Amino acid sequence: MARGISLNRRTFLISTSGAAAGVAATGLAGTGAHAQDGALPEYAAWKDPDALIVHTDRTLETRREAIGAPPITPARELFVRNNLPTPPLSATDDPDVWEIAFEGVASPATMTLGELKRYGVTSTPAVLQCSGNGRAFFDHEASGTQWSVGAAGNVVWTGVPLARVVEAMGGAAAEARFLTGTGGEDLPPGIDPLTILVERSVPIEALDDALLAYEMNGEPLPIAHGGPVRLVVPGYFGVNNVKYVRRIALTPAESEAKIQRTSYRIRPVGVEGDPSQPSMWTMTVKSWITAPLHEPSSGAVVIQGVAMGGASALSSVEVSTDGGETWQAAELTGPDMGRFAWRPFALVTTLEPGRYTVASRATNADGDEQPRDFDPNERGYGHNGWDAHAVELTVS
Amino acid sequence: MARGISLNRRTFLISTSGAAAGVAATGLAGTGAHAQDGALPEYAAWKDPDALIVHTDRTLETRREAIGAPPITPARELFVRNNLPTPPLSATDDPDVWEIAFEGVASPATMTLGELKRYGVTSTPAVLQCSGNGRAFFDHEASGTQWSVGAAGNVVWTGVPLARVVEAMGGAAAEARFLTGTGGEDLPPGIDPLTILVERSVPIEALDDALLAYEMNGEPLPIAHGGPVRLVVPGYFGVNNVKYVRRIALTPAESEAKIQRTSYRIRPVGVEGDPSQPSMWTMTVKSWITAPLHEPSSGAVVIQGVAMGGASALSSVEVSTDGGETWQAAELTGPDMGRFAWRPFALVTTLEPGRYTVASRATNADGDEQPRDFDPNERGYGHNGWDAHAVELTVS
Repeated sequence: MARGISLNRRTFLISTSGAAAGVAATGLAGTGAHAQDGALPEYAAWKDPDALIVHTDRTLETRREAIGAPPITPARELFVRNNLPTPPLSATDDPDVWEIAFEGVASPATMTLGELKRYGVTSTPAVLQCSGNGRAFFDHEASGTQWSVGAAGNVVWTGVPLARVVEAMGGAAAEARFLTGTGGEDLPPGIDPLTILVERSVPIEALDDALLAYEMNGEPLPIAHGGPVRLVVPGYFGVNNVKYVRRIALTPAESEAKIQRTSYRIRPVGVEGDPSQPSMWTMTVKSWITAPLHEPSSGAVVIQGVAMGGASALSSVEVSTDGGETWQAAELTGPDMGRFAWRPFALVTTLEPGRYTVASRATNADGDEQPRDFDPNERGYGHNGWDAHAVELTVS
Repeated sequence: MARGISLNRRTFLISTSGAAAGVAATGLAGTGAHAQDGALPEYAAWKDPDALIVHTDRTLETRREAIGAPPITPARELFVRNNLPTPPLSATDDPDVWEIAFEGVASPATMTLGELKRYGVTSTPAVLQCSGNGRAFFDHEASGTQWSVGAAGNVVWTGVPLARVVEAMGGAAAEARFLTGTGGEDLPPGIDPLTILVERSVPIEALDDALLAYEMNGEPLPIAHGGPVRLVVPGYFGVNNVKYVRRIALTPAESEAKIQRTSYRIRPVGVEGDPSQPSMWTMTVKSWITAPLHEPSSGAVVIQGVAMGGASALSSVEVSTDGGETWQAAELTGPDMGRFAWRPFALVTTLEPGRYTVASRATNADGDEQPRDFDPNERGYGHNGWDAHAVELTVS
């Protein structure tokens, strides 16, 4: 994603989409047409190359035109954002032997996934979204991957309800205030581990909904998405869903790892990260248009997108075709799969030839409405402003 | 599946599962270990060979041990049952040019899928189940594929709401009583078309929920499952969900095709099919155990399965470990995705070493409870008796 485009960034994004659509129309997709984006890395070689923008070998974004309006995002199309190289691919050969250490409970223990499965099972549809999804829409040059809308997906996690494990171990230690998960990546020698360790803490209340997930969309969780087992904290930004989780601790304080202490903190542009600033924990209400993205012909047009409530359930979505001057209620076209899931929406409308600015605006059960704008922050986190997420559409 | 096993059919089935599990444990799965079942046919070569029993090149069953307890069945694991060879694989190259003729409406028309998409979009999670699922559990030798539990799956269909198309064409003709769909297979010459044509009629009320589906689980519908576009009638047995649909007609009478007139009729053993007999239309309440299927060790055991309400929503599931002497309420472990979807369930219990007969029994919102037994019928359709679906378990 090019940098430094501010005023016309929205239009620029659509031009990119149009080019990709053109490639598909000529039948060249899948034959290296996206080679300028780089090839899929080995651990994600099973994914759909036409659905993904390869920013780097650790950051793969779902193309806006590939998102469509699915109740569930296919694994082959789901984004990837890794902080470190993955463990060896062989780590998922026998998921049941993977060990997790539990601390900060009355009776600490280390258990294999096979043993943990005896505590029960639950399945939770939930949005997985990178903290930086929408970074490309900020006008300042926030460093990091320039995600537009595709660092998000809606998947069904299946795993062990973490609260039951904690209960079986005698419950949380009295002083516990946070649920802290530690990733199982191999750390390179010679570097202070705290500077690179993937260890995140969330408020202990998140334990109620947390899973030790070993399946996604009904299939074993691949390394690319944190298999053999991932800490899933529904409603929380992606970084809190610790991959290849090796340790779960109920702690009195947040982790001292950099990724928790100073990274993933919302602060004004130019300010250093600091533990007093808000951490990227619960997600917010958000929606975006996924179709059409290139010139539809005039007449009936089905405007589609996806919408999520964030920390509370989605309640409604409106669509505007005039850049937010007027709004119409959209229809939620997919099932209600619970408060952590997104829902596809659609508005069937009639458009004459011309140019339109198509925007969507979601509201959640708490009454939070997607704002028009979103204040810049140093690292470009959490953008949910509807204006920047709008698309320019030419109807022929 | 061997025939003529009656008294010990249930035990026999479990032995088969055990053998398959043994193969997996030795790492031989996927290297031809299932070759005795035949290879996947070309149109389904993308499926998971380890998850499927290849009965014939037109009948692929999901193994009971592969079902697991997913809210959504992955496409790679979903069963296939085709009545005729598929259209050429190229039929899905450009789904939007596929044409469907509409008859029995005020203004009959033929439209491409691309044109039809302008009427709107909807996504419906629904169980897809073959009429003969459970045929292997009948004691008489019902002819046809000996499906046990794996001719069923729960998927999310996305498509055009058919009722909107009919409305746009001026509504149903006054005399219309049935929704009739015709498949787009090429019929071999020299045979009376009515004897092989895939054309099914359902009561016109089914129109309210019907879709012209072009996606399954968020991906384009493959030929193996009826792509480029399939008539999906949620709540109705698989045969009514006409693949590669070429014609939709709202008709005063049921189709004269054999598949409607005399096939897929419930009648006593030895009796010929006849239009006066009940057709395989709406599904019934049903559940089955999916795990564990081979020797768990004693202590906490998580018994899992899937359950569906049939024509009305699932309400509850009970599990028995003593062959139906006593029952305990199971927990529904996945999201409620609407009345047409199945839900995974689980019971966490403690089992001492010994032998157990593990059964599940579902109840739907209409108060219909899965029966213990199910009367035999000539073609072995619709078995939902809980006793035959039970599994024998040895706890070590």
